[in-house]
Amino acid sequence: MLVPSALTDLQHIFPADALSIDAAECLVYGYDNSRRQITPDAVVFPSTHEQVAALVRACRAHRVPLVARGRGTNTTGASVPVEGGVVASFERMNRVLRIDPDNRLAVVEPGLLNGDLQAALAPHRLFWPPDPTSAPYCTIAGNIACNAGGPRAVKYGATRDNVLALRAVAGSGEDFRCGKPTTKGATGYDLTRLLIGSEGTLAIVTEATLKLTPLPSAKRTLRATYVDVTAAAHAVARIMAQPVTPCALEFLDDQCLALARAHGGDAIPLAGAMLVIEVDGEPDTLAPAVDAVSRAARSDGLVELLVAASEEEVARLWAARKALSPALRTLSPNKINEDVVVPVSRVPELVAATRTLAAKYALPIVCFGHAGNGNLHVNLLPRDDAELARAHDALSEVFDAVIRFDGTLSGEHGIGIVKRDFMPRALDANALALMRRIKSEFDPDGILNPGKLLPDRDIPQH
Amino acid sequence: MLVPSALTDLQHIFPADALSIDAAECLVYGYDNSRRQITPDAVVFPSTHEQVAALVRACRAHRVPLVARGRGTNTTGASVPVEGGVVASFERMNRVLRIDPDNRLAVVEPGLLNGDLQAALAPHRLFWPPDPTSAPYCTIAGNIACNAGGPRAVKYGATRDNVLALRAVAGSGEDFRCGKPTTKGATGYDLTRLLIGSEGTLAIVTEATLKLTPLPSAKRTLRATYVDVTAAAHAVARIMAQPVTPCALEFLDDQCLALARAHGGDAIPLAGAMLVIEVDGEPDTLAPAVDAVSRAARSDGLVELLVAASEEEVARLWAARKALSPALRTLSPNKINEDVVVPVSRVPELVAATRTLAAKYALPIVCFGHAGNGNLHVNLLPRDDAELARAHDALSEVFDAVIRFDGTLSGEHGIGIVKRDFMPRALDANALALMRRIKSEFDPDGILNPGKLLPDRDIPQH
Repeated sequence: MLVPSALTDLQHIFPADALSIDAAECLVYGYDNSRRQITPDAVVFPSTHEQVAALVRACRAHRVPLVARGRGTNTTGASVPVEGGVVASFERMNRVLRIDPDNRLAVVEPGLLNGDLQAALAPHRLFWPPDPTSAPYCTIAGNIACNAGGPRAVKYGATRDNVLALRAVAGSGEDFRCGKPTTKGATGYDLTRLLIGSEGTLAIVTEATLKLTPLPSAKRTLRATYVDVTAAAHAVARIMAQPVTPCALEFLDDQCLALARAHGGDAIPLAGAMLVIEVDGEPDTLAPAVDAVSRAARSDGLVELLVAASEEEVARLWAARKALSPALRTLSPNKINEDVVVPVSRVPELVAATRTLAAKYALPIVCFGHAGNGNLHVNLLPRDDAELARAHDALSEVFDAVIRFDGTLSGEHGIGIVKRDFMPRALDANALALMRRIKSEFDPDGILNPGKLLPDRDIPQH
Repeated sequence: MLVPSALTDLQHIFPADALSIDAAECLVYGYDNSRRQITPDAVVFPSTHEQVAALVRACRAHRVPLVARGRGTNTTGASVPVEGGVVASFERMNRVLRIDPDNRLAVVEPGLLNGDLQAALAPHRLFWPPDPTSAPYCTIAGNIACNAGGPRAVKYGATRDNVLALRAVAGSGEDFRCGKPTTKGATGYDLTRLLIGSEGTLAIVTEATLKLTPLPSAKRTLRATYVDVTAAAHAVARIMAQPVTPCALEFLDDQCLALARAHGGDAIPLAGAMLVIEVDGEPDTLAPAVDAVSRAARSDGLVELLVAASEEEVARLWAARKALSPALRTLSPNKINEDVVVPVSRVPELVAATRTLAAKYALPIVCFGHAGNGNLHVNLLPRDDAELARAHDALSEVFDAVIRFDGTLSGEHGIGIVKRDFMPRALDANALALMRRIKSEFDPDGILNPGKLLPDRDIPQH
């Protein structure tokens, strides 16, 4: 519970309708898609940069934890206020401040929804590349916090590649701007990209200048099935090695296909593995681009390559891919959805390792995801308490395999609560020590999103 | 001069042929393309990561300045050892350690030349995008130090967009790895991009994992002349707003054209401004891509649009562009070559401002550069001591104009010695304070490249 003097300070910053200590209201700002939940002591709804700066200073003065929150769509517990304190929900700072087509940029508030941004950009024939599955209801600053990606990242990069400048308030209470509305810059240290992926542990973003990309005027969707995972992964490497990069290169293993078919019907083929490939371009260039990608996809072990003939067929393909995540949750309410990354060429080894672990722990494990980046959603699917207990050991071995294959814990979901204990396996001790020291400079009293991203000091290195 | 105990420590780390305190030898490691020069007390030639780690620890123990050096092609004085001490020249760590086409990456030593890397990649039909004019004789770690760009950055990004992972030794003596050989990652703070552009002030890079791009199989070069700078800048915005991004979009103002013609002959047209545009692609896609860019380039004020018909014509166009820099030095041995960046739409205002300053200070100022990124090489060309004296005041006003137009001091050359006094104008005080604190965590005794990038504490904010 907040001490009275802290609450008084918050009341000086926020009008009555922008501050709540009501337990029922606080409750709903205490969980995210990780299904973890801790009720904060207060929720505030900032509407200006100045309020955020005053909020951080007040929280620092009272040593109160402060957790910035978009819409809680993240899967890692990064927005759960594990030490209580104040949650700042940015739902009222949701405006597009400026769209500047000549400079291919937009200036936005942190609580703007990704989908609302895309809708505002469409009339200008521009888009912002990050496209997580949650795009209709996740925020830009949430995307920034976890370096969100999505299928398009294979061609257009993830969040870190698509932000030009930020305005923010460090945990010290100092507000600052970093970056510029330009695509090049070599003026001092890159604070912008340091904040991206830092999960609100260094500073709270109050404004973002986003790099936009011209919207291609046409897109073609292909479906390629292969005899097995190795053949599909080999095709991915071939596709990525030629100059026409697809704008999506999604992978589903045989077990995902079986599940998708069970839920989605016979339109989903059964095969050893499937790739959903999208190619974008202009009317004149699209056909040859599709040809180039098709040639690369026609490698050993191809079963069938189909170009979707209609919008309905495209919709069915993506529906299968997008229905997977909820379908898996139906199968396993406690599913553990990881988003590990390995070099593209090591995808078959990783999938093979998960099969071995599935057998060892008698537990369903399926793999799908963004193959062009080697970013696989390894899903552990415990169906009862006994399987759930085994799943945690299996997960630990999944991470060991990922590290062994020169990969890392997360490609786009971040670390949050759920993966921070594994950080000492993924990073060397000196890198982790430098990260802790950077944290201490931005947030000397550790008020910003405590208990996230960096492991506790007593977690041993593996 | 090094104290004897420091020299003894260096002698324990380096064999006799990898350490010199000979004044004549030290002399040549004390300058760069900024034409500034300070002779270091010793030069060492590391050949392993372990030697570099031991070197940093020895320099820290003795509080000796340590400056990492590629080939000294930078223009900002970043590799000049202004406080003496030890220069570490990386010319012996120049190997390509691994080319991995399936994962589109290469692992290289820091002293590898950019041009040698490109030659090693060509048989794999891959390239590394950064292409500064000095590519044949500048190093990869030099490119990393200043976040080097070049014409291709408009399509493929600068150095910061094309490095996946680094191995490095911080000024504290701690060695670490950051990043992974994957194109996505959301595992902790982004130390990789923090090091890129830090000019050797945080850590010394000993290995780099570079992101590669498939080499397009064909390229077409266009030349577009316009009635004036504003018309050319408007065409640049139109070109950048459509989906086919050219792989070079270079700008020359009327004065540059006149100078290039004087040196390069009648093949160079006289006009209000010229764009050199390159479009790359595959045999099937190139023609429509050229058409799309040509349509965008055909805006109001176009004088003539020519597609180069032959290799010779292409070579002549680029020769004119590349001869500019040396031609300007002939005209003005003390030329001041800046590489400021502004939003693309503000290029005409910046060029107009430089014209006003040229008149005010009675000093030739010309503009050319990477228009697609708004990255202009503003060249001040003093021809005698009186003009040189005035040039410094003019330069200060150029930077004021750049900041006024929402731009920044450097797009690809970095800050070094020559621009650090202007940093307080470009960055707000809190951002600068955070940079200083990051520096203090990586390099607590300030031994790495002292006197660079960050301004002295007593430089007032403008």
